[in-house]
Amino acid sequence: MQTNLELMKELSIKSPSKIVMLVIDGLGGLPDKSGKTELESAATPNMDRLAEKGMCGLVQTVAAGITPGSAPGHLGLFGYNPLEYIIGRGVLEALGTGFEMLPGDIAARGNFCTLDAKGYICDRRAGRIASEKGAELCRLLNGITINGVQVIVKSVKDHRLFVIFRGAQLDERVTDSDPQRTGVAPNNVSARDHSAVKTAELINKFLSIARETLSPHSPANMILLRGFSCLPNFPLFPEVFGLRSAAIAAYPMYRGLAKVIGMDVLDCGTTLQEEIATLEQNYQNYDFFFLHAKGADAAGEDGDFARKVRCIEEVDTFLPRISELCPEVLIITGDHSTPATLSAHSWHPVPCILSAQHIRPDGITKFSEASCRYGGMGHINSTALMWLAMAHGLKLNKFGA
Amino acid sequence: MQTNLELMKELSIKSPSKIVMLVIDGLGGLPDKSGKTELESAATPNMDRLAEKGMCGLVQTVAAGITPGSAPGHLGLFGYNPLEYIIGRGVLEALGTGFEMLPGDIAARGNFCTLDAKGYICDRRAGRIASEKGAELCRLLNGITINGVQVIVKSVKDHRLFVIFRGAQLDERVTDSDPQRTGVAPNNVSARDHSAVKTAELINKFLSIARETLSPHSPANMILLRGFSCLPNFPLFPEVFGLRSAAIAAYPMYRGLAKVIGMDVLDCGTTLQEEIATLEQNYQNYDFFFLHAKGADAAGEDGDFARKVRCIEEVDTFLPRISELCPEVLIITGDHSTPATLSAHSWHPVPCILSAQHIRPDGITKFSEASCRYGGMGHINSTALMWLAMAHGLKLNKFGA
Repeated sequence: MQTNLELMKELSIKSPSKIVMLVIDGLGGLPDKSGKTELESAATPNMDRLAEKGMCGLVQTVAAGITPGSAPGHLGLFGYNPLEYIIGRGVLEALGTGFEMLPGDIAARGNFCTLDAKGYICDRRAGRIASEKGAELCRLLNGITINGVQVIVKSVKDHRLFVIFRGAQLDERVTDSDPQRTGVAPNNVSARDHSAVKTAELINKFLSIARETLSPHSPANMILLRGFSCLPNFPLFPEVFGLRSAAIAAYPMYRGLAKVIGMDVLDCGTTLQEEIATLEQNYQNYDFFFLHAKGADAAGEDGDFARKVRCIEEVDTFLPRISELCPEVLIITGDHSTPATLSAHSWHPVPCILSAQHIRPDGITKFSEASCRYGGMGHINSTALMWLAMAHGLKLNKFGA
Repeated sequence: MQTNLELMKELSIKSPSKIVMLVIDGLGGLPDKSGKTELESAATPNMDRLAEKGMCGLVQTVAAGITPGSAPGHLGLFGYNPLEYIIGRGVLEALGTGFEMLPGDIAARGNFCTLDAKGYICDRRAGRIASEKGAELCRLLNGITINGVQVIVKSVKDHRLFVIFRGAQLDERVTDSDPQRTGVAPNNVSARDHSAVKTAELINKFLSIARETLSPHSPANMILLRGFSCLPNFPLFPEVFGLRSAAIAAYPMYRGLAKVIGMDVLDCGTTLQEEIATLEQNYQNYDFFFLHAKGADAAGEDGDFARKVRCIEEVDTFLPRISELCPEVLIITGDHSTPATLSAHSWHPVPCILSAQHIRPDGITKFSEASCRYGGMGHINSTALMWLAMAHGLKLNKFGA
């Protein structure tokens, strides 16, 4: 059988209709003491009007009970089965900082750690050293060249860093140096495939240089690397769907992700206001817009219920400007839930509106977790959403005669 | 791509929270003339209270329209896709009697049958001989040793029996001797794989001894064997989920099934009262409890609507004792429906409650087939249930960064 994306490529046709997908990061929530979720507590007159005009539903990003990270959360919304299309940990770390990986680069996620006198790991996070210290130590390691391979070392935050190995014929199939526990020495990196032998040797050479360089800098006297990975070679979104596609996202992770699947990533400033202006300015040039609103997720992760409510309300105030553009298909949903009561991403399904001319009305008049449960879209997997978007944009041929 | 259980093993983490899964065998039903199902007719104040606190849904054990046997029904609830994890007919028959199979044993389901003068089968059930007669004839065949392989023959009920072949290097890949029709001779058993040739020869030798031994005992003058199978080598439940797991089930089939997937099977007497006491006594020692209540299914199979109602009501009276233990996750569901109006297992989805701290409330206040249709859990496949249980027990890492 074909994968979802192959069938999509076969059935999709070009048409002048436009699709706007507004992703309110971490949209879904749980009730606080008031008995209402963040979305249910927010005043969202514009979303409610859209819910009334459109059809609603609940979206599960990966599968029942699974709490999605940001990457699988978004890949699902873009139609890529997140269990099938996996992006390596190293690549995600680099994308998250906005670093521009090149094809062939290998990225690894890293930690500064503390080795004791015997060379055993006694703290996997080097006492969670300050970001400034981390950045200073990364500069010591950055820019080394080994056998023609350039090694780029960048600080992320606190003890976190990433490393890029840039050179010819590297192979990502190597094991982690990070044993992910204390009381043992860091692992030697080894090849998981014969063609990765040279890459493993090179990484081990780099790690021995790192150990020497960092030895006077206890507690951050070593680094641990894991999740060696190249940019994935996924089918490209614009080709699969036949859509000129633009990403409008202020945060590096989402920009990087959109780039991986071939969307044009537009310069869009840092605020929602600027993102909407970017949408307006570029509206004629694309068929599909991924518009990302970050605030709600961050507030949820901080456990700040009231701020998450305000973030959702802020998004609501911009909706009229999107609606005025009259996209044939407008979707509002999230990449996962981030209930403030959990201060974390969660597994709970996400409310969703799809507004378009040919929807079958479902009588829902409010946008909320509770009401979406009864919506005409039903309870769907996120990978179905792009199919519905394409269908409602009249961009899909009939399947079979 | 990974199977469901591999991903679970990767994402599951240990935590002190506890999960209790109460399986009311054959819980789902159909309305009788009153217009209410068995569950809807029962007074279940404790289940209703739990439905109000928790989230409800409908669970499909195998797939739409499929009527599950007890084994697939339970495997689904335990997170094993019943279409993928198949237990052989012979093994199920042995487990059902409480017989302790050893690794390497081959089990077969058997019938006494009647052969006519030409050696053709004229009755596949030997006139449904009485259980006592069956047991007596099984004793004639039991305990034979052929080429060092011990043959164990046990009566099940009426004309039903099972045979165990116990010895070195047996191979289950052999065909049935039972042609499952009359007017033909029993089949010779043949190897489906080259390494099963010796096993097939051995079984044929046993069958010719059986024919000779039984020839004076018409109508039960022969046996027919089918479903040759070893104990399956499934991933073990405690390892997959990282849960110290206990089964509390009075009936042999469910005890056997739990053992196959590595649960500890607790001594628990024969009544619900004793099962609950077993739960209380062992509560500190495990993270997961499978608690099995059999009565409703048996009543449903007997077509006894009123007795099934009483069985459900009896379970309800024990709920407060479970709730007093304060399990972080409490699930109540069934392994399939057994409507008294059908006097049999059926394909109808089964009502389910999941109660836990971080559920999203769904406004359901009564536990019934009708109300669960609108529950927040939606209509799910049974294999999703353990994922939801683990998520709500905060026992799963995030998927992807």
